[in-house]
Amino acid sequence: MSGVIDFYFDFISPFSYLAHYRLPTIAARHGCEIAYHVVDLKVIKLDGGNTGPTTRDMPLKYRYSGTDMQRWAARYGVTIKRPSGYGPNRLNEGVFWAADRGAIAEYVTATWRRVWGEGGDMTDAALIRGVAAELGWNVDEFLAFTESEDAATRYRASTRGAHQHGVFGVPTMMIGEQMWWGNDRLDFMEDYLAA
Amino acid sequence: MSGVIDFYFDFISPFSYLAHYRLPTIAARHGCEIAYHVVDLKVIKLDGGNTGPTTRDMPLKYRYSGTDMQRWAARYGVTIKRPSGYGPNRLNEGVFWAADRGAIAEYVTATWRRVWGEGGDMTDAALIRGVAAELGWNVDEFLAFTESEDAATRYRASTRGAHQHGVFGVPTMMIGEQMWWGNDRLDFMEDYLAA
Repeated sequence: MSGVIDFYFDFISPFSYLAHYRLPTIAARHGCEIAYHVVDLKVIKLDGGNTGPTTRDMPLKYRYSGTDMQRWAARYGVTIKRPSGYGPNRLNEGVFWAADRGAIAEYVTATWRRVWGEGGDMTDAALIRGVAAELGWNVDEFLAFTESEDAATRYRASTRGAHQHGVFGVPTMMIGEQMWWGNDRLDFMEDYLAA
Repeated sequence: MSGVIDFYFDFISPFSYLAHYRLPTIAARHGCEIAYHVVDLKVIKLDGGNTGPTTRDMPLKYRYSGTDMQRWAARYGVTIKRPSGYGPNRLNEGVFWAADRGAIAEYVTATWRRVWGEGGDMTDAALIRGVAAELGWNVDEFLAFTESEDAATRYRASTRGAHQHGVFGVPTMMIGEQMWWGNDRLDFMEDYLAA
């Protein structure tokens, strides 16, 4: 089966990081392309009527979530560390800069490695500069873009589009109208691709 | 490895139903006993700081959840149907009557079959009577128990105890201090048992 896997993510999400660790391999195995859609998780949850607190604001769930993500990381053989600072919007908006240069896969891989692989601060200008430098971009232009109204407008549109497709959380994978929510549903998605 | 699997559940939860479909087999395979702990999911979520709406109150998530539970049911080869009526407290409180008669496993199996297997109304006295009759209990005495202050007191204590062990949702499985939340984490639990 060949086709497109729509992948909805937010850099704030550890399970988006984990899902993306496997996703390119799965896509390649089935001759699929990945269409990347960055969304503002906070907004997409509210748009879906989820007015509850974040996991970080629920101590028991937060503690368990840390254990759970380490179990997945051990299964995948990948490192995961909680970021030293949260606030993903600039990195999320950077996705559009990458898209304009045909470098989304490289950008998300480099960003996730720093944020969830190494536990960096998402809001740290040095981290953001490091990603741009690694990709060979003009660092100052990239930084300026992540603060631009253009980037913010595209980010809002991408988030709105995801909601219109029924997305209420991340990571979400869609193939046509079929939807899977969560890193832990990649097996179901593979079953679908194999069928 | 032999030991005890603490299993926290609420009859309102379809994923508790799905987890319990597999759990006795897993427990038997590893020489473990299941200790059943019924909890009031609504209360345990609030105790964990989760003030958000239920899945049934979030249309996009509710729609997806229906698809997701059918995927799991297909994988397990079991039927799942959404109940025609919600409100699990009387059935939950009936667990203590079953416990006093050494018949919890039989009770939860019979109850889940009617509620999530056949899509019955959790609050329907005829459904509750049917479970009691199937187990050979005095139906009127059982019904009266599920409305008693004794049952309510034990239900509150069970819910409080679960919170004190760190439970914030259901189904939750614990072996000692190790915790797994969700039907979709039974594989991790089996890995632990096999290690």
